[in-house]
Amino acid sequence: METKEKPNEITRRQFLTTVGKVGGSAALFSVMGTLGLLSPEAAKAADFTPPGNSDLTVTNRNGKKVIILGAGIGGMTAAYELGKAGYDVTILEARDRAGGRNWSIRRGTTSTEIGASKQVARFDDGMYLNAGPMRIPQFHVTMEYCREFGVEIEPFNNVNDSAYYYNENAGTLSGKKIPKRAAKADMRGYVSEMLAKAIDQKALDLPITPEDKIKLVNYLKVEGDLDEDLFYRGSERGGYKDEPGSRLDAGVLRDPFDMKAIIGSGFGNFFSSEYSYDQQMMMFHPVGGMDMIAKAFEKRVGHKIKYHAEVTEIRQSSTGVRIVFNDLDKNTAKEVSGDYCICTIPLSVLKSIPADFSPDMAKAISSVGYASAGKIGLQFKRRFWEEDEQIYGGNTLTNMDITSIYYPPTKYFSKKGLLLGYYAFGSNADKLGKMSYQEREKLALMQGAKIHPQYYEEFQASFSIDWKKIKYNLGGWVAYSSDDRKTYYPTLCKPDGRIYLAGEHISYITAWQAGAIESARSVVTDIHQRVMKE
Amino acid sequence: METKEKPNEITRRQFLTTVGKVGGSAALFSVMGTLGLLSPEAAKAADFTPPGNSDLTVTNRNGKKVIILGAGIGGMTAAYELGKAGYDVTILEARDRAGGRNWSIRRGTTSTEIGASKQVARFDDGMYLNAGPMRIPQFHVTMEYCREFGVEIEPFNNVNDSAYYYNENAGTLSGKKIPKRAAKADMRGYVSEMLAKAIDQKALDLPITPEDKIKLVNYLKVEGDLDEDLFYRGSERGGYKDEPGSRLDAGVLRDPFDMKAIIGSGFGNFFSSEYSYDQQMMMFHPVGGMDMIAKAFEKRVGHKIKYHAEVTEIRQSSTGVRIVFNDLDKNTAKEVSGDYCICTIPLSVLKSIPADFSPDMAKAISSVGYASAGKIGLQFKRRFWEEDEQIYGGNTLTNMDITSIYYPPTKYFSKKGLLLGYYAFGSNADKLGKMSYQEREKLALMQGAKIHPQYYEEFQASFSIDWKKIKYNLGGWVAYSSDDRKTYYPTLCKPDGRIYLAGEHISYITAWQAGAIESARSVVTDIHQRVMKE
Repeated sequence: METKEKPNEITRRQFLTTVGKVGGSAALFSVMGTLGLLSPEAAKAADFTPPGNSDLTVTNRNGKKVIILGAGIGGMTAAYELGKAGYDVTILEARDRAGGRNWSIRRGTTSTEIGASKQVARFDDGMYLNAGPMRIPQFHVTMEYCREFGVEIEPFNNVNDSAYYYNENAGTLSGKKIPKRAAKADMRGYVSEMLAKAIDQKALDLPITPEDKIKLVNYLKVEGDLDEDLFYRGSERGGYKDEPGSRLDAGVLRDPFDMKAIIGSGFGNFFSSEYSYDQQMMMFHPVGGMDMIAKAFEKRVGHKIKYHAEVTEIRQSSTGVRIVFNDLDKNTAKEVSGDYCICTIPLSVLKSIPADFSPDMAKAISSVGYASAGKIGLQFKRRFWEEDEQIYGGNTLTNMDITSIYYPPTKYFSKKGLLLGYYAFGSNADKLGKMSYQEREKLALMQGAKIHPQYYEEFQASFSIDWKKIKYNLGGWVAYSSDDRKTYYPTLCKPDGRIYLAGEHISYITAWQAGAIESARSVVTDIHQRVMKE
Repeated sequence: METKEKPNEITRRQFLTTVGKVGGSAALFSVMGTLGLLSPEAAKAADFTPPGNSDLTVTNRNGKKVIILGAGIGGMTAAYELGKAGYDVTILEARDRAGGRNWSIRRGTTSTEIGASKQVARFDDGMYLNAGPMRIPQFHVTMEYCREFGVEIEPFNNVNDSAYYYNENAGTLSGKKIPKRAAKADMRGYVSEMLAKAIDQKALDLPITPEDKIKLVNYLKVEGDLDEDLFYRGSERGGYKDEPGSRLDAGVLRDPFDMKAIIGSGFGNFFSSEYSYDQQMMMFHPVGGMDMIAKAFEKRVGHKIKYHAEVTEIRQSSTGVRIVFNDLDKNTAKEVSGDYCICTIPLSVLKSIPADFSPDMAKAISSVGYASAGKIGLQFKRRFWEEDEQIYGGNTLTNMDITSIYYPPTKYFSKKGLLLGYYAFGSNADKLGKMSYQEREKLALMQGAKIHPQYYEEFQASFSIDWKKIKYNLGGWVAYSSDDRKTYYPTLCKPDGRIYLAGEHISYITAWQAGAIESARSVVTDIHQRVMKE
């Protein structure tokens, strides 16, 4: 196809090509940023300049000591970035492992929820459950650290039209597992049909030209797979009753559902979960478990971490900070001093630690709520979702307590598999959280078996987590109301004397590792600028 | 949530659980099939019973000889399945490799298109271009062979909202690369807004209850991300001008496009490419190249393949078949005889081979057309789509000749990368096919650089294919008109004496490896039943 272009576009391209040829790709990238040709994500990533080693050497301000509380992703990011410039960094971590909520449950992993007994994971070797974060949007800064550290990634199958919707008390489709593609194709068809007919019959007073109306109707025909008369009568997009095959087997399309049935099912409210900015494909996760990221950070900053160091007091003066902690191995109080403190302890935990915060800061820390979130991993001795139902990764959504089932997006075709038997939030998570480990397993199996009758036959072992009952976390992630963002949040973002808060809770990317990383980078930049000015 | 269920559903589940406990998972699977609880894909797969070794032994009809023409996926499937029952099988293959259109171009691969010079792939080791099939829907039978053969698979990122739409001569959005998420979110928003308002204002005479109308409007609010007044005013689903970040950086939403601009852009007609049954996520491909499947078949039936055997005559009598071929190594005519022949040679090639077909069959073979299809692989020394633009796999669609750009869905974060610089069909493919290899490369770079200005700086090597000009293929895939399906296709599906056709062209899954496999299995079943009756 021959194309004409505006002169200024040709100029722009020619200009960029020239820049590339003369200055190489770094120059090209820089010029693209200047011209606004980079994605906002890339532009944001390019914003951060880690403190350089030469900065401190040149100004002879080496030796500044920063105490970091918590060896989660935020704390380790801060340590890693400060380390690049030669800061003296110590991380205090209450647990015997780094990573925080970045936690992959494997054979032998234990957890003792508050008020409950000890649970031991009896999964086979090689199986894992990502108890905390399990997916990464391709545009999050988390990906950049995976690249930098050589953490191998693979797609996280967040969208799978072969998985199901399954609702109860939901009209004529109650208690039926409906392939997502079927509900989506039908609803898209009916919506397109209704609008196309309304436009065609001039029932709508749209502020567009007759020519554009024709284009719009044509679009709706394609979008909804409508016939020439603008009727939706089913579509191959929704799948088949009998698959097309070889020779004379042309296949038989499924009959579409009544629109009333789909409206009544509530499935329509599930569709858009795939559209939200941070849930759109493509998404990724590290091969072998999300904790590959934690381990990669740990490899670089692990020598700076004091494990089994439970912070009991956070003190500061005009000249420095002093952190008292309980050495859990010896059960003795110890302390460490420094110039600054970066505190990544979740607010739900921090609010109970005696600290020299300003009254405003103390009030803000104690006023913000945390989200309930729970998961259960179910190991099955056969990947029946792949073998019997051709579902490779993705999730089934339901209005039962279990909320969702996630099929493992890894090790396809292998013998056994570990399903995420539920991933629940809010009141569903609260209900499941109150149960014993055994009761959670029983409920997950009972409700899951409604969708997959293979459950009981193939089940082997479970492990469940209620984040509100996990010591040192006491919640899934911060849950700011819009009021909280106005009243308390600005205080949390400001340094309080020599103490800086960081973590997913100090970001607008809450519940994501990227929030912890971005906040750590922001705090590191602040501290470094302050040091350089001193 | 407490749920009530119909008694018959409880009974069904209890029944299945009992079956599972008593008979194990095989029994459960079988009963599920009987009850219609399996997906149609699973039911179809379960339909095929390969000939068993015991069949022939018991009836003493061993030693039947089948000559298979073509060592593509269809031919090798037939050989593999017949081999299970001890048939004597010979495959004649004109090339020095198996796989047919299942062909991965690697360093040193050559091709000499008809009327053109020889092309040598100068890609780095480890890089590959899947010249033919490159993706597998999760429900295709192809997956079952991957499982059986231990071919490792990984997701093929067929949907990626971070990739672009880029159209020229398309109104105000001409010549701009628009992230897919932006165009999709805006159009979904406007469509939902228009319909929701029409329903709310009772402009439509819908045959649903007032209660359902409220549910429908509520659905549209969620689906389109509308505000309380049913207006679409932009959505985070479409992305940001400035990303949300840490501390006080709440991000700035992008401004939505005018509806008129999107309608004029033609992007709307791209959306549904992701919805068609065989393009929906999840899709997969073998790790290391699509030819891993061909190699897995070859490992099992390779000893039965005569390579460099170009079929020159296909003869049959009432008692057997006789195939004359040119031994290309010695340039001498040879022949091989058998009881039956399975011919998988594409009709575009077969029509020129002298053969003892019935007049009806000969007419049918010569009457059907083949699709144009072309691809170019472009090796770049830097994965700028990942590093600069955070695009990990997926495709960019355009109305330029190149039609699409596919980002490699494998080896993320590695240094270099091989883009599919175009994948074109129809008239676009014809135009590109007529060009020299050098002209194709030039055009792919010129048009691709409009979307990715990094192209010229980072480009290293190309390799292109026009399937119409590839000897022994002469086309991408069969292109039946609906008339062809009525007039010629039934003849092609019937055995012609002792000759059976197989291949993607003998299926309703044309252009897919699954079509070749299913047709081969169908033909194998027929021949076996005929042998058992003899």
